[in-house]
Amino acid sequence: MRIEGRNSVLEALNSSSVTVNSLTCVKGDNGSVVAQARSRGVKITYVDKSVLDKESASGKHQGYIADIVDFDYCDVSDILACSAEPFVVVLDGINDPHNFGSIIRCCECAGVDGIIIGRNRQVAVTDTVVRCSAGAAAHVKIARVTNVNNAIKQLKENGVWVYALDMDGDEITSVNLRGAVALVVGSEGDGVSAYARRLCDGIVSLKLKGKVNSLNASVACGVAVYEVVRQRG
Amino acid sequence: MRIEGRNSVLEALNSSSVTVNSLTCVKGDNGSVVAQARSRGVKITYVDKSVLDKESASGKHQGYIADIVDFDYCDVSDILACSAEPFVVVLDGINDPHNFGSIIRCCECAGVDGIIIGRNRQVAVTDTVVRCSAGAAAHVKIARVTNVNNAIKQLKENGVWVYALDMDGDEITSVNLRGAVALVVGSEGDGVSAYARRLCDGIVSLKLKGKVNSLNASVACGVAVYEVVRQRG
Repeated sequence: MRIEGRNSVLEALNSSSVTVNSLTCVKGDNGSVVAQARSRGVKITYVDKSVLDKESASGKHQGYIADIVDFDYCDVSDILACSAEPFVVVLDGINDPHNFGSIIRCCECAGVDGIIIGRNRQVAVTDTVVRCSAGAAAHVKIARVTNVNNAIKQLKENGVWVYALDMDGDEITSVNLRGAVALVVGSEGDGVSAYARRLCDGIVSLKLKGKVNSLNASVACGVAVYEVVRQRG
Repeated sequence: MRIEGRNSVLEALNSSSVTVNSLTCVKGDNGSVVAQARSRGVKITYVDKSVLDKESASGKHQGYIADIVDFDYCDVSDILACSAEPFVVVLDGINDPHNFGSIIRCCECAGVDGIIIGRNRQVAVTDTVVRCSAGAAAHVKIARVTNVNNAIKQLKENGVWVYALDMDGDEITSVNLRGAVALVVGSEGDGVSAYARRLCDGIVSLKLKGKVNSLNASVACGVAVYEVVRQRG
């Protein structure tokens, strides 16, 4: 997999869980990214900027394209083992890589122990996702499961309280989200699937006071995740 | 100005503060958007889908392109007049139209009385911003000022407590944000400018527990705005 952009490449180089195969950068570059790549023994190729422009998928390489070993997913049990009271986010059908990247970034900042995604109706951890996560994908455990509903059951069997973030639920600030907790975030268009909703211990909602009344999935996830952080103190 | 996409066009048609000049849609369309346009006396032009595809700037017209009167900015005093205890968001240099649109959307959902933006280092309310706001731009007061710092002074003179959302401040959940309050959100790269920071009554920060430790500007704004909503109850 390739990642692009100064921050994403530097995060990958600084991460213990990502293996960088090679780095391509502009001739004469002697900056901190190159120094870090050199210190990690990464093969460095110097090219003209025009070559990077041509090879860049995003058009935003900022002078750096790195080839890394494909994303290393973990198991749900690895996430459960992180903490006596794990804090988990389950994504039930996020299709937009920008939203997924932004959700990873925000979960990393909020100290979420791990993210669970399904194989269907859900974008995987692609180059674009890693870039949109500003490199945070290198620091968060992500489990990719065949069936999100089974993962929800597994969480519940392990003592995690699972809440769907969706419309028509209890106001999130009024629900006790301390302890082992998982938030299920649905797709922007359809929300959490009906079956997943039924599996959850409860539905939590954000207060909507406007006329449009639909938040971007990553913003909604950010607000909810930080409400958990606030309650856990 | 042109707006595109089903939701954005429908929001504009339903808004009392937006004037839709004309609607272009696909031949034979007799759906709710067309019905609403007809009921508002908007001139409707029916074309082949290929014409919309060609005219679409975003490539996401979803069958609807509308021409609306350019965005109608308000004054800071209009926002102050909204409420005895206004809730204001000040943007100090948001350059990404997606972020700006997402911030407008989230402010509308959270019941923010108005948004203040500067003329410099800040994207205006463009077609892309309106589309990214999912139509919410039609329902939020937005003031565009020559100097954001003067606007902050004006807010303070009118009894509004102004807080910069930035690094190295007090944890936002520990600060009293009830009453008349404004949040200043800086650009993703540079944060709130040094002078604006000094003008503010305080700096509030989100708890960052990860290694990446920078949130997307719209997610950070969403979390902060919803903390104000929580405290205002």
